[in-house]
Amino acid sequence: MTPAADPQGLTRVPVALAERSYDILIGSGLVRGAGATLAERFPGRAVAIVTDAHVGEIHGPALEASLSGAGIRHHRITVAPGEATKRFAVLEEVVDQILAHRLERGDIVLALGGGVVGDLAGFAAAIVRRGMGFVQMPTSLLAQVDSSVGGKTGINSRHGKNLIGAFYQPGLVLADTDVLDTLSTREFRAGYAEVAKYGLIDDPGFFAWLETNWRGVFQGGRDRVHAIATSCRAKAAVVARDETETGDRALLNLGHTFGHALEAATAYDGARLVHGEGVAIGMCQAFRFSAKLGLCAPMDAVRMANHLKAVGLPTELSEIPGGVGDVDRLMAAIGQDKKVARGKLTFILARGIGESFIARDVDPAAVREFLAEELARD
Amino acid sequence: MTPAADPQGLTRVPVALAERSYDILIGSGLVRGAGATLAERFPGRAVAIVTDAHVGEIHGPALEASLSGAGIRHHRITVAPGEATKRFAVLEEVVDQILAHRLERGDIVLALGGGVVGDLAGFAAAIVRRGMGFVQMPTSLLAQVDSSVGGKTGINSRHGKNLIGAFYQPGLVLADTDVLDTLSTREFRAGYAEVAKYGLIDDPGFFAWLETNWRGVFQGGRDRVHAIATSCRAKAAVVARDETETGDRALLNLGHTFGHALEAATAYDGARLVHGEGVAIGMCQAFRFSAKLGLCAPMDAVRMANHLKAVGLPTELSEIPGGVGDVDRLMAAIGQDKKVARGKLTFILARGIGESFIARDVDPAAVREFLAEELARD
Repeated sequence: MTPAADPQGLTRVPVALAERSYDILIGSGLVRGAGATLAERFPGRAVAIVTDAHVGEIHGPALEASLSGAGIRHHRITVAPGEATKRFAVLEEVVDQILAHRLERGDIVLALGGGVVGDLAGFAAAIVRRGMGFVQMPTSLLAQVDSSVGGKTGINSRHGKNLIGAFYQPGLVLADTDVLDTLSTREFRAGYAEVAKYGLIDDPGFFAWLETNWRGVFQGGRDRVHAIATSCRAKAAVVARDETETGDRALLNLGHTFGHALEAATAYDGARLVHGEGVAIGMCQAFRFSAKLGLCAPMDAVRMANHLKAVGLPTELSEIPGGVGDVDRLMAAIGQDKKVARGKLTFILARGIGESFIARDVDPAAVREFLAEELARD
Repeated sequence: MTPAADPQGLTRVPVALAERSYDILIGSGLVRGAGATLAERFPGRAVAIVTDAHVGEIHGPALEASLSGAGIRHHRITVAPGEATKRFAVLEEVVDQILAHRLERGDIVLALGGGVVGDLAGFAAAIVRRGMGFVQMPTSLLAQVDSSVGGKTGINSRHGKNLIGAFYQPGLVLADTDVLDTLSTREFRAGYAEVAKYGLIDDPGFFAWLETNWRGVFQGGRDRVHAIATSCRAKAAVVARDETETGDRALLNLGHTFGHALEAATAYDGARLVHGEGVAIGMCQAFRFSAKLGLCAPMDAVRMANHLKAVGLPTELSEIPGGVGDVDRLMAAIGQDKKVARGKLTFILARGIGESFIARDVDPAAVREFLAEELARD
């Protein structure tokens, strides 16, 4: 009996979005059980697997064997790994291949990969025939706990990251925890920053649990499944309350306004800074900025940074190879971030660990002053 | 007092789509009243006017003067006229310009033009920052009664028309009936095909009214406003029942499966065949095919074709300059049409005038035989 055929072996996290509701299945063996799962949930549907060259080489054959075994017609569409793939030219190519394979509206685009593949494939699924079936099979920790849940899809613009896209929910997310064993420590850590984020937003108990049990999360097994499922549940709850980010959902951006600016300032060069590292530093900045504004006890900013440091994540601008330029450059990147409302700056700030809140109308002058201090830290 | 400031002078057609509900305003003077209308309905929002070189030259200055007069920040983005504009490269350029002007999520993309501009600009509005404000200002009869209502946006693929896009509702449609005076007779007629369609679908009384009053519709004034408002109301009712075309909405495709195939077979060359002409022939074919299948009285097929002929629309394949190729070519075009469900052919057929219905599982062999007869007609 394969694990996918054995619901007892899997953790199911439902995402409640009325007629767009779906399940996240978390556990072992989901790649090799994918054929049976899809045949049961989406009978008769053909599948376009969108993956990158790296992930496709590792996990493509097992997935394809599983789909073939279940009698599912499938085609593989391969893109280059890396953030640079999230652009119009690649989107056009993926869309063209989906249509060339004559997939219909009810057929499925399956994203096999990390956040880049999920964002790109999801956006393609959203726009081909004005919306096809879509299944996420996230292969990075970051994608499993963040980008594969919630329906944000899209590509980058020269004006900023993720400025072009759609809210488009998958019909199913299959988070196979085995595949995380093929990640580098750096990649795993980057995903861990988003796991810690859920504790920092509104779950101080989970943050304390992570401080004690983070080694188990890195190691695998029960602690890893617990951390992923807790993260998915936290994200699903926020997304269910606010699907298109008109309110509460912005809480998920803790660390992301600073983080995106750092990614922009390093030209999205993953060798220097990957998304989760930007978020790690960004969260530390959000807490330090909150402390500077007198909103949060300085000790909380120190405590959360100490935990991220312990798992090996960067917490300071000075840790970014090559630097990030000056205050003007960072402010320009923040200004183009899409979480700007009518010219005012919006940040997620904190009153303590697990007490984050949305601060609209943040004074740009205060941000400038804070960033100048941050750049002066060593 | 401008007409826009005088709601009594305008016909308002509400489109009921829960939190995506919006109004269609129909009448005289809406372009020069646009500034006041937008300032009242969307206070403080900047506007990106997307238009084509032709329409922008005629109506751009009046619209811009009106926006400036109301203190609204605005930018004009100009694309080339014609169906070829509905492609990825132009979409990318429009999206880039919207972002370059630093428009925010709450700001407005305003489509000033016909169906091409509306489809392209609406798709851009749907995907920039995962959804901006969107206002339609349709300047062709076709756009006023069809494409500007209902939220279908998109671009073409080499695999077929409108295969890439989004369902994205505008926040407001301003249908200025004065601007239709600048259309050529051919363009007006093409739009009229869609007006007649609403009678043919489910309103035999409206069709009979058109048979008597079509000259008034072409001339302008009260009959024109009545025909446009009746069409918008009909479309709004169908869209409200089935926003994303999973059921009833397919009725609006009367004449469109054949029509799209004819557009594809003429390489979307507007000199040979414009959309509304394809729909006119397509509707005649839908009725002749229905008659051939014994579903509809042959006299109804003759009667509806006679009316379209009377207004000067084409009703036969032989009227298309340069021809449309053979049966294989037309069948291939029909097979790629996005209204295919799981390999079966779906057509809108009729039991009589005003009695159209969705026929799923139409036998491709019967379509082939019918098309061979159509090609042999002279």
